[in-house]
Amino acid sequence: VSKKKLAIGADVGGTYSKIILADEAGRILADTQIETQASRGPKKFLRRLADAAISLQRQSGLRAKAIGLGIAGDVDSEAGKLRFSPNLKPFSGFPLRRTLQSYLHLRTAVENDANAAAWGAFVCELKRRPLNMACVTLGTGVGGGLVLNRKLFRGSTGSGGEIGHMCVEADGALCHCGARGCLEAYMGSYGLTGAAEKLMSGPSGRKSLLHRAPGGKLTPQAITDAALKGDAVAKAVWKMGGYYLGLGIASLIYLLNVDNVVIVGGVSKAGRLILDPVIKVLRSKPFQAPLKHARIRIGQKPHLGALGAALLGLEER
Amino acid sequence: VSKKKLAIGADVGGTYSKIILADEAGRILADTQIETQASRGPKKFLRRLADAAISLQRQSGLRAKAIGLGIAGDVDSEAGKLRFSPNLKPFSGFPLRRTLQSYLHLRTAVENDANAAAWGAFVCELKRRPLNMACVTLGTGVGGGLVLNRKLFRGSTGSGGEIGHMCVEADGALCHCGARGCLEAYMGSYGLTGAAEKLMSGPSGRKSLLHRAPGGKLTPQAITDAALKGDAVAKAVWKMGGYYLGLGIASLIYLLNVDNVVIVGGVSKAGRLILDPVIKVLRSKPFQAPLKHARIRIGQKPHLGALGAALLGLEER
Repeated sequence: VSKKKLAIGADVGGTYSKIILADEAGRILADTQIETQASRGPKKFLRRLADAAISLQRQSGLRAKAIGLGIAGDVDSEAGKLRFSPNLKPFSGFPLRRTLQSYLHLRTAVENDANAAAWGAFVCELKRRPLNMACVTLGTGVGGGLVLNRKLFRGSTGSGGEIGHMCVEADGALCHCGARGCLEAYMGSYGLTGAAEKLMSGPSGRKSLLHRAPGGKLTPQAITDAALKGDAVAKAVWKMGGYYLGLGIASLIYLLNVDNVVIVGGVSKAGRLILDPVIKVLRSKPFQAPLKHARIRIGQKPHLGALGAALLGLEER
Repeated sequence: VSKKKLAIGADVGGTYSKIILADEAGRILADTQIETQASRGPKKFLRRLADAAISLQRQSGLRAKAIGLGIAGDVDSEAGKLRFSPNLKPFSGFPLRRTLQSYLHLRTAVENDANAAAWGAFVCELKRRPLNMACVTLGTGVGGGLVLNRKLFRGSTGSGGEIGHMCVEADGALCHCGARGCLEAYMGSYGLTGAAEKLMSGPSGRKSLLHRAPGGKLTPQAITDAALKGDAVAKAVWKMGGYYLGLGIASLIYLLNVDNVVIVGGVSKAGRLILDPVIKVLRSKPFQAPLKHARIRIGQKPHLGALGAALLGLEER
């Protein structure tokens, strides 16, 4: 049994919430999952989350000192509230921290999920070594978090780290945010599948393996599988996505001169299919010094969002 | 006579160096200028700079407690050295701080000029109020500096704040750094004059006032003068530059969620000709919260680089 301080972390998604019990070094000692059921309201969700946290501790015979929530949306971490989230609308404005604290009597952190993942990557992937790092989260959307001077950097109103809405192509592809040319419009899962569909319907896309994607569903995973089988369309999609991701990461490094960039999230499982074109862009830039200094890697540990949330719980006073 | 702490600040350029004596509130009490004469070497330059600093104090009857240098180039502010500068090659690697300290026996700071300007803008334009701010310097090149959590943020190796090399247009215009699509390629003075030349040679550019620019020299100032007289080409150039600057500033705000952006440097004298298209871009983005929070302004005080350097001198222990 670990003698280290323990904490519960939850990665609260629109459909499911992943819950873990971890030690301060980032080792996961137990984990479970509940349905979020946002439509039933925040109070019922927090009650079930508290019950799951209590069960996790009871079953493992371990005791947590803190709990942290990572939530997709605009989070006011000082107030412990979710300001707004498209996927968790009923939770908006509710005093999440105060309520959860009244249920569990633990130190409680409420944080944006990408910020939580950044903190998880900083502690668990990079062992708190770098002075400055950025984390890019690749999923339906593209998000991110920043750790500057070894502290989570939230910006002035807690909205910092929105790497996915950096413009990489003036008047480019349409993003879910409504603007054009955002990194997310190319590297978000819908940007990738949209690009694949376009190529599949073109003259050289007729024979693409992607027409026979499992279940007829075009996903980043299906594009990865096809690319690994040598499919030209699938390879072109990752090359395009990685190119734009490389441009965004280069801009970020020029601005922040970070030591490390860690790429995480479901879509990052494509691994070298993403990393190779990213590194190609970074090496192609003549102004090399800050780019050469920064190490780019794909996060290897699972559940970095829940882990980071747990660790942020331990940082609360 | 000010009872506040005083400092000398120098903005060291490729041709001239501006030298000021200021108080800790950023009031300039005396100023002078010397030729940099970089080719004669750093020691001779620092000797003449020290002499000018002594004269400034003697003539004004005031005594400085510190001195700060703002230098265009890659500065190692911890070591007090210029790593490299295209315009001050003979100074590269020379122990600037140690040598100047041995001449004047004052607390001495050596800083990148855009970082110094950012600090000057933070203290003198914004009275240290914002938690987070960015400064964009517009001149031949486009640079910048960041003040995060009310401290100058230099990045991991002192190269942070390179706003001008953020990519705003994949595979776009050629930048002096050798890459394509950097903000500087559009908004650096050469990007602006290059765009003007293109438009002037086009069918609707024949009658542009810019063909009669004073001394036949196409400069940002000449483009401003023509735009204020209603010249269509000149107006289009500022609209284009401001559009790309707006895209870069929007990316910066999404990433860092700053309270303020201050635009400074010679080219910023175009004022509203730049600010209007920048604000138009920021207002056009549907994801508004962080953009709406940030206030954009053009710096009004002269010599912010020298001022910031002086104030950074006072911050040295």
